[in-house]
Amino acid sequence: MSDLNFTIKMLGDCRFPSPMQCGRFTGEQEQLLYHSRYEEIRQSIEMDMKPPTMELAGPRERIFFDSAQIACGIVTCGGLCPGINDVIRAITLSLYHHYGVSKVYGFRYGYEGLVKRHGHQPLELSRPLVNWIGELGGTILGSSRGPQEPAEMVDYLEELGIGILFAIGGDGTLKGAAKIAEEVARRGRPISVIGIPKTIDNDISFIQTTFGFETAVTEAKRAIYTAHTEATGARNGIGLVKLMGRDSGFIAAFTALAYSQVNFCLVPEVPFSIGGLLGALSERLERRGHAVILAAEGAGQELVSAIEERDASGNVKHADIGAFLRDTIKGHFSRKGFEINLKYIDPSYTIRSQPANPHDSAFCLLLGHNAVHAGMAGRTNMVVGFWNHQFTHVPISLAVSKRKKIDPEGWLWNSVMASTGQPRDLR
Amino acid sequence: MSDLNFTIKMLGDCRFPSPMQCGRFTGEQEQLLYHSRYEEIRQSIEMDMKPPTMELAGPRERIFFDSAQIACGIVTCGGLCPGINDVIRAITLSLYHHYGVSKVYGFRYGYEGLVKRHGHQPLELSRPLVNWIGELGGTILGSSRGPQEPAEMVDYLEELGIGILFAIGGDGTLKGAAKIAEEVARRGRPISVIGIPKTIDNDISFIQTTFGFETAVTEAKRAIYTAHTEATGARNGIGLVKLMGRDSGFIAAFTALAYSQVNFCLVPEVPFSIGGLLGALSERLERRGHAVILAAEGAGQELVSAIEERDASGNVKHADIGAFLRDTIKGHFSRKGFEINLKYIDPSYTIRSQPANPHDSAFCLLLGHNAVHAGMAGRTNMVVGFWNHQFTHVPISLAVSKRKKIDPEGWLWNSVMASTGQPRDLR
Amino acid sequence: MSDLNFTIKMLGDCRFPSPMQCGRFTGEQEQLLYHSRYEEIRQSIEMDMKPPTMELAGPRERIFFDSAQIACGIVTCGGLCPGINDVIRAITLSLYHHYGVSKVYGFRYGYEGLVKRHGHQPLELSRPLVNWIGELGGTILGSSRGPQEPAEMVDYLEELGIGILFAIGGDGTLKGAAKIAEEVARRGRPISVIGIPKTIDNDISFIQTTFGFETAVTEAKRAIYTAHTEATGARNGIGLVKLMGRDSGFIAAFTALAYSQVNFCLVPEVPFSIGGLLGALSERLERRGHAVILAAEGAGQELVSAIEERDASGNVKHADIGAFLRDTIKGHFSRKGFEINLKYIDPSYTIRSQPANPHDSAFCLLLGHNAVHAGMAGRTNMVVGFWNHQFTHVPISLAVSKRKKIDPEGWLWNSVMASTGQPRDLR
Amino acid sequence: MSDLNFTIKMLGDCRFPSPMQCGRFTGEQEQLLYHSRYEEIRQSIEMDMKPPTMELAGPRERIFFDSAQIACGIVTCGGLCPGINDVIRAITLSLYHHYGVSKVYGFRYGYEGLVKRHGHQPLELSRPLVNWIGELGGTILGSSRGPQEPAEMVDYLEELGIGILFAIGGDGTLKGAAKIAEEVARRGRPISVIGIPKTIDNDISFIQTTFGFETAVTEAKRAIYTAHTEATGARNGIGLVKLMGRDSGFIAAFTALAYSQVNFCLVPEVPFSIGGLLGALSERLERRGHAVILAAEGAGQELVSAIEERDASGNVKHADIGAFLRDTIKGHFSRKGFEINLKYIDPSYTIRSQPANPHDSAFCLLLGHNAVHAGMAGRTNMVVGFWNHQFTHVPISLAVSKRKKIDPEGWLWNSVMASTGQPRDLR
Repeated sequence: MSDLNFTIKMLGDCRFPSPMQCGRFTGEQEQLLYHSRYEEIRQSIEMDMKPPTMELAGPRERIFFDSAQIACGIVTCGGLCPGINDVIRAITLSLYHHYGVSKVYGFRYGYEGLVKRHGHQPLELSRPLVNWIGELGGTILGSSRGPQEPAEMVDYLEELGIGILFAIGGDGTLKGAAKIAEEVARRGRPISVIGIPKTIDNDISFIQTTFGFETAVTEAKRAIYTAHTEATGARNGIGLVKLMGRDSGFIAAFTALAYSQVNFCLVPEVPFSIGGLLGALSERLERRGHAVILAAEGAGQELVSAIEERDASGNVKHADIGAFLRDTIKGHFSRKGFEINLKYIDPSYTIRSQPANPHDSAFCLLLGHNAVHAGMAGRTNMVVGFWNHQFTHVPISLAVSKRKKIDPEGWLWNSVMASTGQPRDLR
Repeated sequence: MSDLNFTIKMLGDCRFPSPMQCGRFTGEQEQLLYHSRYEEIRQSIEMDMKPPTMELAGPRERIFFDSAQIACGIVTCGGLCPGINDVIRAITLSLYHHYGVSKVYGFRYGYEGLVKRHGHQPLELSRPLVNWIGELGGTILGSSRGPQEPAEMVDYLEELGIGILFAIGGDGTLKGAAKIAEEVARRGRPISVIGIPKTIDNDISFIQTTFGFETAVTEAKRAIYTAHTEATGARNGIGLVKLMGRDSGFIAAFTALAYSQVNFCLVPEVPFSIGGLLGALSERLERRGHAVILAAEGAGQELVSAIEERDASGNVKHADIGAFLRDTIKGHFSRKGFEINLKYIDPSYTIRSQPANPHDSAFCLLLGHNAVHAGMAGRTNMVVGFWNHQFTHVPISLAVSKRKKIDPEGWLWNSVMASTGQPRDLR
Repeated sequence: MSDLNFTIKMLGDCRFPSPMQCGRFTGEQEQLLYHSRYEEIRQSIEMDMKPPTMELAGPRERIFFDSAQIACGIVTCGGLCPGINDVIRAITLSLYHHYGVSKVYGFRYGYEGLVKRHGHQPLELSRPLVNWIGELGGTILGSSRGPQEPAEMVDYLEELGIGILFAIGGDGTLKGAAKIAEEVARRGRPISVIGIPKTIDNDISFIQTTFGFETAVTEAKRAIYTAHTEATGARNGIGLVKLMGRDSGFIAAFTALAYSQVNFCLVPEVPFSIGGLLGALSERLERRGHAVILAAEGAGQELVSAIEERDASGNVKHADIGAFLRDTIKGHFSRKGFEINLKYIDPSYTIRSQPANPHDSAFCLLLGHNAVHAGMAGRTNMVVGFWNHQFTHVPISLAVSKRKKIDPEGWLWNSVMASTGQPRDLR
Repeated sequence: MSDLNFTIKMLGDCRFPSPMQCGRFTGEQEQLLYHSRYEEIRQSIEMDMKPPTMELAGPRERIFFDSAQIACGIVTCGGLCPGINDVIRAITLSLYHHYGVSKVYGFRYGYEGLVKRHGHQPLELSRPLVNWIGELGGTILGSSRGPQEPAEMVDYLEELGIGILFAIGGDGTLKGAAKIAEEVARRGRPISVIGIPKTIDNDISFIQTTFGFETAVTEAKRAIYTAHTEATGARNGIGLVKLMGRDSGFIAAFTALAYSQVNFCLVPEVPFSIGGLLGALSERLERRGHAVILAAEGAGQELVSAIEERDASGNVKHADIGAFLRDTIKGHFSRKGFEINLKYIDPSYTIRSQPANPHDSAFCLLLGHNAVHAGMAGRTNMVVGFWNHQFTHVPISLAVSKRKKIDPEGWLWNSVMASTGQPRDLR
């Protein structure tokens, strides 16, 4: 606990009064306890240690930038996730309306757009342009994967007079943002780098919820519905659904809770064996005549002959558990001479490309506003997080330090067991 | 024209007055013109030929069956299609409420359920049971593919005292229904066989619209939306969607009209070459930076090395145009060193398993009622069709005589050209 | 029959070859039989009368206007209806892409925008502007009610060099369009006036379906769902829904078919008495404990003390049957000391403001294209209609001659009776 | 702070081992800190006061009831709210599957069903019956308002052998549940009373989120969409929406964040004057030509001539702010001779009767499970709450002690100001 470091980097003194009309913090230090269990906190206070606390997000009384002097930039990287356009919209409108910044650039196609020689002219984000984009899925800026040279990117930021760069993306993107912040620091320039964590898997450490996750669970329901309808429409029908979740099974677990026709939920955090799964599946088919299986894409990776490959963003490319399970289950029952009807559903892009649902729209609005407040107040090398129903500042280094994962002994996984009725141990 | 035969087979005289409260036809012969163009009809009348007409569906004043004496049965075969449960519900409730039939069996798992030795006990369809099933996708009876022995099926129908068998299914199912009707005729039994044509592809001859088609077009929009969002979210993004349409491209064509972000629509009726498609695609990417391609599953079958195989229902199994196009396009641009981002979306099951939309719900209700009227009035070996906004009786032999197809010179395909802007000739 | 006049007015000779790439009619006279019953047509041909036929819509080989020389205008009037923006989009893009017209004006706020002195500058409709508007409900042009002086409007059309005016609106709007066409004819100017009939009630004569109707039925389902849920959630619950349908009950009737929880459907075409309704309602509450009542807004007008008033468009303002039924039913059961729980739902605006569903989107696209074909080919004083699954040309005078109504003896109303189970006679 | 009492009442010793397979707490005392700001907690610990903590919900190692011996009952009271059926389902299945309880009664029509002489036979809730009810809005048990005599209700509970009564309802219902628990205590009977707080307004103290709230915000979007479409479709269009929120404006505030076309958000917690509103509205119409106003039903109650009346549940009946604003705004601009087009939308029932969205479905599942765990472990006179992303036990007396309200100085209201751009002070 003592090695947690929630200290947020600052560009320098906040010399300017905020033009923000309402709700400004009178101090800079308002903090939220990171843990919420009584015993742990009492013990750390008694041992004269400060329990881990996080800086709260929000507008400050004094800000770092002279808003009349700076331009700002927004970049979106990696795969699609519901809500990106809402965040772009919220940042742009907050810069214009709350702080009077007069120029906001939207860089095209991820970090590529920050490298001048690639020749992607940035969009000037005007109010009429961004007004309706929350209704659209995807990203109006376009995206790409993979890193670019920090020095080249900072050159371009300086040339354009960027004061704050907002980077919307996942692990790889945030690591890239940290490198930009370090290059900025090396040059001693007044450029703030604020990350907005984008991971549909909701697996960023020290952050309870990321945008797009609720929409993903909402949209996943359609795949489960399909699987269940197909499974019950045939003798010994099996509906097999693969959902997102490379390293953490949060989407799969919440989908299993939201739609109780799921009979088996497989996640990366909880190992299973083929024998264990097939045994339980046979038993279910005998008893009920159909089954719905939901697998996070990272589940059972040790079972498939993992092809060690990395995609352009540096993520390990996982072998396809969905196709593996489909073929394995079909083969097994075929060898036993037991006729099944398996339908395999992989809704990935359809989920990722949806616009945010109202919950995520509101969440993205607040994320965007708080990212602007943080940037204007001179914070840098941080992401906007969410903890105990409040927005927070989290150093990038912490956010990317490890993946958040389902605790196989915790309430979430226990609730999934309680809802699906699947055997606790499928090994 | 003169060889069209719309004569509907009858079991015998209609001896009973109908208990149906309202809207009964005073005669048995009300007819609808099959063609609607002026010149064709004028010519045939002048030549003293009767132009082709169809018997209108609807309740008759006199009916064949004594409703107190018969049971009825419903069977659902083949793949899922939105609206099956609505049809089951409409038939069941019409038999109970309009005619006072007291027993309706739902056979399980397609024609298998009509063969006693398979041991699938039929469901007794009660009013509370069927009341809410229209809200569910799929079929509550379960389905299967492939034929069964007519003699065995008629044995079971006789044993159960079935007066009318309603068979909901596609081409293969209707051919099976005709064989049952022939076996019944051979035995001289008073059993009526009424088909309700189920083809999500809407490709049954002499029938303008089949149930589930509107829902399929509605649901397909989501796949197009995904494809367009992914295509515009990346440099040289290509969204490729495969939709249903083995022999006829109606779903693809109407989807292209309903969602105008489609740039290329490929259907079985209009040949194209790989060179033609790639040339037009390159041109579009140069000009606009993204493209959406929509392919019916039966499009370009001559291009893929067709594996001659038939599925259990006897349909030719088509090679997968979606995967073929995905790989061919990727390979082409990769060889040219031109970076593209192609996302392939295959929503098939998700569309098939949806419940009917309100349009199809109303349509299925009327289909079911008219099927009951036809059966009670002693019609047999026919399907309920729809022509010029009215329900009709169509002999099974006509309905399965050939596939309805898009006319490449007609208004529909011309409208698709006008909407997509794709070159008329992609060969 | 003999007095039907389907002759379409022409501005003059079609001197120019069409630039439209595909699907052009080789002649100008292709026609569709208006009636489709065999006997009627045979008789008229035998009596040497031409049975009523309609000119088919579609592109012609030769056109009237030199597309390089004209501007075109679009105006939207009256209440909102799903699909208006789709029609605007289709007309605009067809003029640009199919015919090469270079300027399309969108007049603001209905006919007001056609009167220069009101000072509403018309929008120039560009391709990027109209591209996405199909996703939006309402009308991007704004609307208003009520007529304007034809002379003033034609003055402005001449000043702006308008060749074709497209007027999207209902009865009053079409009558206004006819007056513009007459003023144009009086002046002998080459200005075509093409109406696109907009009536969510689907009650225009000689036209089977108008745009927005399918969407309205789809959206109405939500109100029925609410009514049924509230009705079953309380002892003696009654859900009362008022839907659109001033003079014709098509929306109510199709909604009753689409959603079979409706127990009583009340439409303007079928009179009922309060005593008849209350009697049947009491009987249903005794038997089933809840009831859902659906009333078209024009139902039972003779029962409410009609306030004779006309709105700005000249439509008779109807007294509110919804509030009347609510109060009458509550009063009745209260006097009887029988506790009921009535919830009244009036979803009007919510339905009218939705974007078109995919069915209507495709329909609006084709309507818009055919309106452009008609205008470019010199037709005027007509609307684009739809009959027997094909688009047609209908003179405005015919389209507004009377309201299309439900036939209380026809299949639609009989099917409603068959579905709701309500007594045939509620008088 | 020191007078907060989160002590949960117990029926007695927990003598039985839990049959619950997984996730049981090893102790009974696991606790969550109620506050989460650092300074407050540090100070209370330094002052040797225990900061307020809540007992965490979840399964216990030892339970109070012998599950083989008891029946359980569920009752639903008050207005509809999305998710009631999900809670009924979760409780029923958890009792059966997790604890082996063999009989679960569903009392009909609220507390009326607990009074035997009213003659409402309770439903026996079987597994097949509850399996699909989550797909339905409303409550399958029916509901009613108003209290009943505690003694009569406890008589019936004893007669039926009820061990745990689950009461799903709002303030009035929970007060009624407390009275039942007190009567039970007076008699010294082993009957646990567990409340599940139902308030679509999300205004129960010490509970961050109640079920149905997320669905309500999601569904409210449709009303805002309508209002905005109507407002922009006419000159000086005004869309006025009334949403739920008698005492607290949470739904209105979150809806304003989720859908950024809202220009004025009015809530009970923030007073405004007619003059202030009309001035700001005039200014907006001058500047932008349209406006969307969103009013919680309890907003501006001091402005309307409040009719002091209480409904059957004892809630103060509020005068209708929606109709008041509609008439006041219309009158004002009419007197000024300034033509506006105001459309008033009141979607109340339509929102309340929807089924839960996936977020609320998952939430209701966990609520139901935790209610069962609490009851089986002998807790009573409490509700299941949710705080800092964890389920908790809250004494009924605390939960009903006061309404949770929006803090006009807090982040939520400040974010609404930031999003709508409305003047901070409309008085």
